[in-house]
Amino acid sequence: MAKEITPRHQDYAQWYQDLVLRAGLADYSAVRGCMVIKPYGFAIWERMRDALDAMFKATGHQNAYFPLFIPKSFFSKEAAHVDGFAKECAVVTHYRLRTGSDGQIEVDPQAKLEEELIVRPTSETIIWNSYRDWIQSYRDLPLLINQWANVVRWEMRTRLFLRTTEFLWQEGHTAHATADEALVETRQMLDIYAHFAEKWMAMPVIKGIKTEQERFAGAVETFCIEALMQDGKALQAGTSHFLGQNFAKAFDVQFANAQGEREYVWATSWGVSTRLMGALIMAHSDDEGLVLPPVLAPVQVVIVPIYKGSDSIPVLTEACQQIAEECKALGLRVELDTEDHARPGWKFAQHELRGVPIRIALGLRDLQNGEVELARRDHRTKTQTTREGLGLHCKNLLDEIQEELYNKALSFRTAQTHRVDTKEEFLQKLNQGGLVMAHWDGTSATETAIKEATKATIRCIPLDTPDEAGTCVWSGQPSARRVVFAKAY
Amino acid sequence: MAKEITPRHQDYAQWYQDLVLRAGLADYSAVRGCMVIKPYGFAIWERMRDALDAMFKATGHQNAYFPLFIPKSFFSKEAAHVDGFAKECAVVTHYRLRTGSDGQIEVDPQAKLEEELIVRPTSETIIWNSYRDWIQSYRDLPLLINQWANVVRWEMRTRLFLRTTEFLWQEGHTAHATADEALVETRQMLDIYAHFAEKWMAMPVIKGIKTEQERFAGAVETFCIEALMQDGKALQAGTSHFLGQNFAKAFDVQFANAQGEREYVWATSWGVSTRLMGALIMAHSDDEGLVLPPVLAPVQVVIVPIYKGSDSIPVLTEACQQIAEECKALGLRVELDTEDHARPGWKFAQHELRGVPIRIALGLRDLQNGEVELARRDHRTKTQTTREGLGLHCKNLLDEIQEELYNKALSFRTAQTHRVDTKEEFLQKLNQGGLVMAHWDGTSATETAIKEATKATIRCIPLDTPDEAGTCVWSGQPSARRVVFAKAY
Repeated sequence: MAKEITPRHQDYAQWYQDLVLRAGLADYSAVRGCMVIKPYGFAIWERMRDALDAMFKATGHQNAYFPLFIPKSFFSKEAAHVDGFAKECAVVTHYRLRTGSDGQIEVDPQAKLEEELIVRPTSETIIWNSYRDWIQSYRDLPLLINQWANVVRWEMRTRLFLRTTEFLWQEGHTAHATADEALVETRQMLDIYAHFAEKWMAMPVIKGIKTEQERFAGAVETFCIEALMQDGKALQAGTSHFLGQNFAKAFDVQFANAQGEREYVWATSWGVSTRLMGALIMAHSDDEGLVLPPVLAPVQVVIVPIYKGSDSIPVLTEACQQIAEECKALGLRVELDTEDHARPGWKFAQHELRGVPIRIALGLRDLQNGEVELARRDHRTKTQTTREGLGLHCKNLLDEIQEELYNKALSFRTAQTHRVDTKEEFLQKLNQGGLVMAHWDGTSATETAIKEATKATIRCIPLDTPDEAGTCVWSGQPSARRVVFAKAY
Repeated sequence: MAKEITPRHQDYAQWYQDLVLRAGLADYSAVRGCMVIKPYGFAIWERMRDALDAMFKATGHQNAYFPLFIPKSFFSKEAAHVDGFAKECAVVTHYRLRTGSDGQIEVDPQAKLEEELIVRPTSETIIWNSYRDWIQSYRDLPLLINQWANVVRWEMRTRLFLRTTEFLWQEGHTAHATADEALVETRQMLDIYAHFAEKWMAMPVIKGIKTEQERFAGAVETFCIEALMQDGKALQAGTSHFLGQNFAKAFDVQFANAQGEREYVWATSWGVSTRLMGALIMAHSDDEGLVLPPVLAPVQVVIVPIYKGSDSIPVLTEACQQIAEECKALGLRVELDTEDHARPGWKFAQHELRGVPIRIALGLRDLQNGEVELARRDHRTKTQTTREGLGLHCKNLLDEIQEELYNKALSFRTAQTHRVDTKEEFLQKLNQGGLVMAHWDGTSATETAIKEATKATIRCIPLDTPDEAGTCVWSGQPSARRVVFAKAY
């Protein structure tokens, strides 16, 4: 199996692509930059989606669905917003095909739209246009809506899950009576994303604020979670935006307050996407394939009977079925691999490639000894384990694996996080990879100069670190706190 | 409340639109023909989706996701398919906007696509293009995939849920080694749709086969479920297609059979959409608003304390909370309406409008008497009910309502189904509305003549009725069986 996947040290980008394709997570499509999410990849995404959806609903949000298309004139109502997205918009101009004089199918020039439609790259504009009708009084607030949808951003260089022309995501769009309330919402959703990343994906994240340059087009403030990948590059895993009254003003959304006065509404938006699949893969996987946190694994335990002659088939199959039932009764997701054409070694490699956290193998001798062979995907170790209490053992072990994956990723991040105070150290550490905590003078000019010189960006101004005065590593000007620099996906 | 909704007898189409808007199910959008599915409507759709999804998974199907866009050249590979959809395609021709010389945002003419992209109206072509790579041998079959997605069909006359330019749906696309196996799959999915319509939506359906004229573009045979709405019009609620080898041939999808010979793969596709929301609304609702089958109702029981002075608030609130807890413990979906600004009468009308199956009201006197007032949405009756055992009573009553709604709809359909044997009767009954079971000579010419004369179509050739020779009501030619005629949505 290892032969099919390029090792990480040899070519990390190729390793990633090999893994995504070989593990059956996604595939290229005939449409430039658009991917196919294959069933196994989609099963993982479904688990992520359902977990997040439950958290959104538990905090009072409701799902809805808004149109795929946005009229061009709407799209340009918020100036910063259109500037940010205009260069990557798919545009619908016609609504009919016809058979041409050469017998070929062609676009019917008679069926030209009066106003072009933009395929949504994000839905603030079309949603705030509806909110104008939905919000009249303070009693209509807060309005807490989320949608799960596909969006399109025309990307020139694409990579499966990480950057694709079309991707799946959720976008929350909330409306509030006060700035404070909207800010509380923005922070709440950031915390939910961080909780999901850490507890479900076993991926430590830094919560922070984006600089003006990196802010969402149309936001007053963008909060983000940033994760570190195994190759030392950072990945933005989710964003939560405080939009102020920008969209309310662009779409004239006002409400009557308790005193009957009209005020503009305050807004937030927040989103995570199938990009999280890329983060999940790169956070834990190895040269043998995917490593999945147990809570997100579609299959947590796979059971493989090691047949020896056809006489052994019924007895081993039955014993494996019993194990499967025991595990299922404890709520575990189990697969029984009784396919008798394939060799055990090939099966083992397949299940490793797919990242199944626990593999149980059972042969005739194991059966006699009241044992099984238990393999952990994360450690790639095998141990003989007693059959008695096996279900409970698996359940506990899955919890242990979940925690250990997080701790391992956290240790890695700690080792790859560098506090630097000189320009020389700064350049050296950025070159090595990892997160570089350095003082910055707070100017866009310095940020741009660093980006041009090093290709590193300010990932965020971290929220959970204390202020600490210092000197900018680049300009030597005073700085109030360290920020996180890194090269990023 | 009734004032806000046009009565059915006055204007059925207006009643439908009023209901959809007032009950907060959907809204018009700024994009021609595209709707916004509002939170309450979406909550119902989510329940429908989850129920269907569980049935698909229980029968071995997996979800995946394919691109929104289809290259024009793919789209035209299957001749009947492109003929069927060419006239209603949204076409993406450009991928960038720019600021024009007048300062306005315009489509960038430099960013013209070499090949136009079609926004999927259905995904057979893009999916079968992937299947060519995925299917090599008989071991790769059957391939049982479903996707939940948005699709776009450019419609000239649109109605919320029933016919919209963009809609949400699921589309199953399966690949099989033999025609028989594909036909079994086609029928299995039809049965699942019929089961869902009858057991979840409480809506009786007729399973049947479409005539050649009404067949899906690219199918060998289209199976459907047809339902009768309260205004006597039929509605196609789901279709399951046997595609033969049409798409396999168009996309060159072959597999090596057990003998190592290469054969074309056999295909099915099947889908239901947000159109089901329209069917659900029209099957049961009345002039006061929505009537929902309990299994699909986002809220099954609403509890309203009837406050009388501020002293009564704590005691009644607590008593209502206890009822809510009792119902929740039994797995019921409960809402507690303790809002103290609104008057009970206004609240009752709101909950009726939204179709909550059971409403419980509790005043101080009820509390003293160990009773509550229980209102059934479907009957619009109120009864004093003992507080003891109330949760269980509600649970049983919800089952009863579910069954009764189905039986009521079935009785209505029975009363509105007419067997006719003469042209005069045929015309008269079609004019009255309902389903007309009549002999047809099996020719497209007669089908077209009837359609032109009456606006009625053959909804299906029913599966579950015995063959019965007769004479075509239109042409007088021999007929082997009756088919279902109706005017339809």
